Amino acid sequence: MRIALLGGTGEIGEGLALRWGHDSDHDIVIGSRDPEKAREAADDYESELADRGVDAKITGFENAMAADRADVVVLAVPPYHVADTVDAVADSLAEGDILVSPATGMQHDEDGFHYHRPDAGSVTAIAADAAPDEVPVVGAFHNLAAGRLADLDSDLGIDTLVVADDESAKATVSSLAEDINGLRALDAGGVANASEIESVTPLLINVAMNNDGLHDLGVRFD
Amino acid sequence: MRIALLGGTGEIGEGLALRWGHDSDHDIVIGSRDPEKAREAADDYESELADRGVDAKITGFENAMAADRADVVVLAVPPYHVADTVDAVADSLAEGDILVSPATGMQHDEDGFHYHRPDAGSVTAIAADAAPDEVPVVGAFHNLAAGRLADLDSDLGIDTLVVADDESAKATVSSLAEDINGLRALDAGGVANASEIESVTPLLINVAMNNDGLHDLGVRFD
Repeated sequence: MRIALLGGTGEIGEGLALRWGHDSDHDIVIGSRDPEKAREAADDYESELADRGVDAKITGFENAMAADRADVVVLAVPPYHVADTVDAVADSLAEGDILVSPATGMQHDEDGFHYHRPDAGSVTAIAADAAPDEVPVVGAFHNLAAGRLADLDSDLGIDTLVVADDESAKATVSSLAEDINGLRALDAGGVANASEIESVTPLLINVAMNNDGLHDLGVRFD
Repeated sequence: MRIALLGGTGEIGEGLALRWGHDSDHDIVIGSRDPEKAREAADDYESELADRGVDAKITGFENAMAADRADVVVLAVPPYHVADTVDAVADSLAEGDILVSPATGMQHDEDGFHYHRPDAGSVTAIAADAAPDEVPVVGAFHNLAAGRLADLDSDLGIDTLVVADDESAKATVSSLAEDINGLRALDAGGVANASEIESVTPLLINVAMNNDGLHDLGVRFD
């Protein structure tokens, strides 16, 4: 499949690009508002994979052009840029394309990190509200520590929870998730169930902050 | 230690009573609003442990009397009874006692289960607000599937997250948690961080509902 990572110059985009580049044959397209930055990041990721003996083809384009070239479009942008990023690429999406939302909103105070629940219910719901009617939105990859994901020397052995109101799109994204070694995709229902998933992200940070020896945590359901 | 399980006739109380009775030497006191029900439950738990060759002494009393006899008092009641249960036993609590809050508020609709965040921020915060000033409140045991906990044939191998503003009380309850075989206690910070923990409970139910072969799920941080 062709996967675009919008905001793919950031850490979560880097991690997904490297993992898919390393573990699968999917075509990876890095998107950014600045096409030059997208191309630089794509070259960097290709080089890192080449150093590991993997010949992956990763290209870089401005976000809308990246979305135009892909079947699955991951919104790897901060939560406050999800809606405007969807708007910016909407004309590049065709029926059959899938949007993926991995972002979560957090606030920080002296106690730790807290989930900032948007009025829409979740960031995934913001993406769903902004998406064209014919393009399903799948929430996934919310609870992956970006640094660990981008470190190919780090084993995963963790789960990602997937939500969508379109079962076919959910199955496609679950399959893409499981193409990453050590990542298990679990179905958590519809988009209405996304806020509890997004809430896990600040929790993981709080647990890592308060326990010696634990960092870049993921979660596993047993 | 002497541990009172208020509302200990319910499933989470049963599970904690059986696990501590089986895995530790702590004295277990079952509390209920109805002392006769408390005694019956205590006898049942003793019998089940005796059938497994464990000679545990479990007694039953009305909630306030149960709290009076214990060092650590677990509020194993529904979330909407947490504040009135604390009020009902407040005069029985002495300095040095610890209250433990395992309850979480949920709502259910056609999509699944959702966290119902109380105005106080969390059920743990409700307990902390209701508790006498000299009695610390520790949030723990929120994300344990009650049926699995009460089934001594089921291995755990899962985590429980512990929050408190009193570090000494948090350490005591973490130690009690780890007296249960297969349960690891992780520090998640202060009471202000409880809502993200409580949110995991509806998520576990949603994941179990949507994935064949997964049920009575717990969570593990890796």
